[in-house]
Amino acid sequence: MKALRYTGGRLELAETPIPEPQPGEALVRVVKSGICNTDLEIVRGYAGFEGTLGHEFVGVVQTAAGRPDLIGKRVVGEINAGCGECAHCIAGDPRHCPDRTVLGIVGRDGAHAEFLQLPASNLLEVPDSVTDEQAVFTEPLAAAYGITERVEISPGTRVAVIGDGKLGLLCAMSLVLKSRSVTLVGKHQNKLAIAGRAGVETILLAAVNPSMQHRFDIVVEASGSESGLSTALDLVRPRGKVVLKSTFHGTPTWPASRIVVDEITIVGSRCGRFAPALDLLETGAVNVEDLISHEMPLSKGVEAMDEAGRKGNLKVLLDARS
Amino acid sequence: MKALRYTGGRLELAETPIPEPQPGEALVRVVKSGICNTDLEIVRGYAGFEGTLGHEFVGVVQTAAGRPDLIGKRVVGEINAGCGECAHCIAGDPRHCPDRTVLGIVGRDGAHAEFLQLPASNLLEVPDSVTDEQAVFTEPLAAAYGITERVEISPGTRVAVIGDGKLGLLCAMSLVLKSRSVTLVGKHQNKLAIAGRAGVETILLAAVNPSMQHRFDIVVEASGSESGLSTALDLVRPRGKVVLKSTFHGTPTWPASRIVVDEITIVGSRCGRFAPALDLLETGAVNVEDLISHEMPLSKGVEAMDEAGRKGNLKVLLDARS
Repeated sequence: MKALRYTGGRLELAETPIPEPQPGEALVRVVKSGICNTDLEIVRGYAGFEGTLGHEFVGVVQTAAGRPDLIGKRVVGEINAGCGECAHCIAGDPRHCPDRTVLGIVGRDGAHAEFLQLPASNLLEVPDSVTDEQAVFTEPLAAAYGITERVEISPGTRVAVIGDGKLGLLCAMSLVLKSRSVTLVGKHQNKLAIAGRAGVETILLAAVNPSMQHRFDIVVEASGSESGLSTALDLVRPRGKVVLKSTFHGTPTWPASRIVVDEITIVGSRCGRFAPALDLLETGAVNVEDLISHEMPLSKGVEAMDEAGRKGNLKVLLDARS
Repeated sequence: MKALRYTGGRLELAETPIPEPQPGEALVRVVKSGICNTDLEIVRGYAGFEGTLGHEFVGVVQTAAGRPDLIGKRVVGEINAGCGECAHCIAGDPRHCPDRTVLGIVGRDGAHAEFLQLPASNLLEVPDSVTDEQAVFTEPLAAAYGITERVEISPGTRVAVIGDGKLGLLCAMSLVLKSRSVTLVGKHQNKLAIAGRAGVETILLAAVNPSMQHRFDIVVEASGSESGLSTALDLVRPRGKVVLKSTFHGTPTWPASRIVVDEITIVGSRCGRFAPALDLLETGAVNVEDLISHEMPLSKGVEAMDEAGRKGNLKVLLDARS
């Protein structure tokens, strides 16, 4: 089968054997997959991963150990595969299993391929009314909306999101369903406009002024830049919370004394649950299709990665059937 | 009156007028005051404060606007003096009033003097059974125990405290009243022994081993050093919390990706309420007298600051009556 692989410091479209599912696992024929910034970062050497890239997908189940009802169904899949035996896994949440593998990120071949394998228990059926293009966004939308698992957001909570890339847009467009007051801070008027259509207030970073300082209850850092973190700390109120959503390279410097004196809380947030995200897609509450820049065949995977890294682009989808 | 002042980059024992309380304020004759690391940091230029140092004290009320019942009483005083009109102040908690002054730290002369002024509403009467030496610890003990306002600690919570200075010891010795499992990590066997007598598990930093990694639910950083922060992040479990208790100079670097991937929460913590701390002193639950290294007259204030900064020393108290 075709697979977009990163090995030995090289990205290439390779011909590899179809995966052989392990006990408890399902084999999924991928329909579409989405390129995430994490894929781009892996190719820059982040996390030391080698293998098939990709963790955002929609596909059709071929075989599924213990879940024959899933065969032939269109599914998405949670990306953390746990040991099945630790306290996290027994509680049904392998996201922090210390021995987990992660689809296309840690020790497990990913979704930019014709087939993938995942524990059958990770799969969720996609409702008929959700298109393939929408379904591919389940993972990043779950990650964005997963913020609500980590901090409480109510209609009166003043939220700011820093960064108008894919992740920042999904954060703003999903959090505005919980709070009446969400402001997206970004550098690109055309990207801000996408969130604006979803009812998000938007402002160019250059227009942020002192009157906005220390005003927000919750600030989400989704730019992945050190200056984004610094902006977040400028905007958050005393005793407010900064949610770190982007993984950073390296070790940014932080003004620790502001965190202590103003009793700021910094909250790390990574993966979210898929079920609430699928609900958002089914009800049409978040219009993810506005975020698609390009759709390309898997066979052009290397070129698609270049496209995804190009300034101004948002989501690039791969079609695994071509 | 005598006052230990830091002005124009110089620390000196000065002769100054007795303060004239403003509306709503009380005049307190200081009995004893305690030297905090913050005093030492101010003298190194931290926070840009100039004036009389000191924010830990016990004293006797001379005059008290609107509170004649307090006159002649032995009191301690919360150090944040608010505007009285903002939402924080109206809720009775001026600790985050944007226009606050802070005794001996921000815009208000402090406690290393014969007299001080504070809003009468900041004062709490000291129970007869609490000695002067104990009462001086109300402020730092409140700061330590204030951690319980910011994170939930129950008997099963695994807590580590980094740093065996005054603050770390008070954190460990007060948090062990909430959790059965508190471990203090420090560099000094004799200081660790003080916490050991209070039922705290102790370990030398050099003896921390990989089996302790990612094991603690809550880790309190009370060393004020960048390496302490790094140790804290090593010890905390996924989805655990690191409490930042020490103000740092400068801008430490942090491994932001660990915070995101393992969904760590970083919680800044500064001042605590005095009433619970006074309760701890009254019941003898925390033996603060073990932390007193020296007691010196206010007239030797400059020398006492040197003594407080000397390696190996813990709390140095000043007696304002001599």
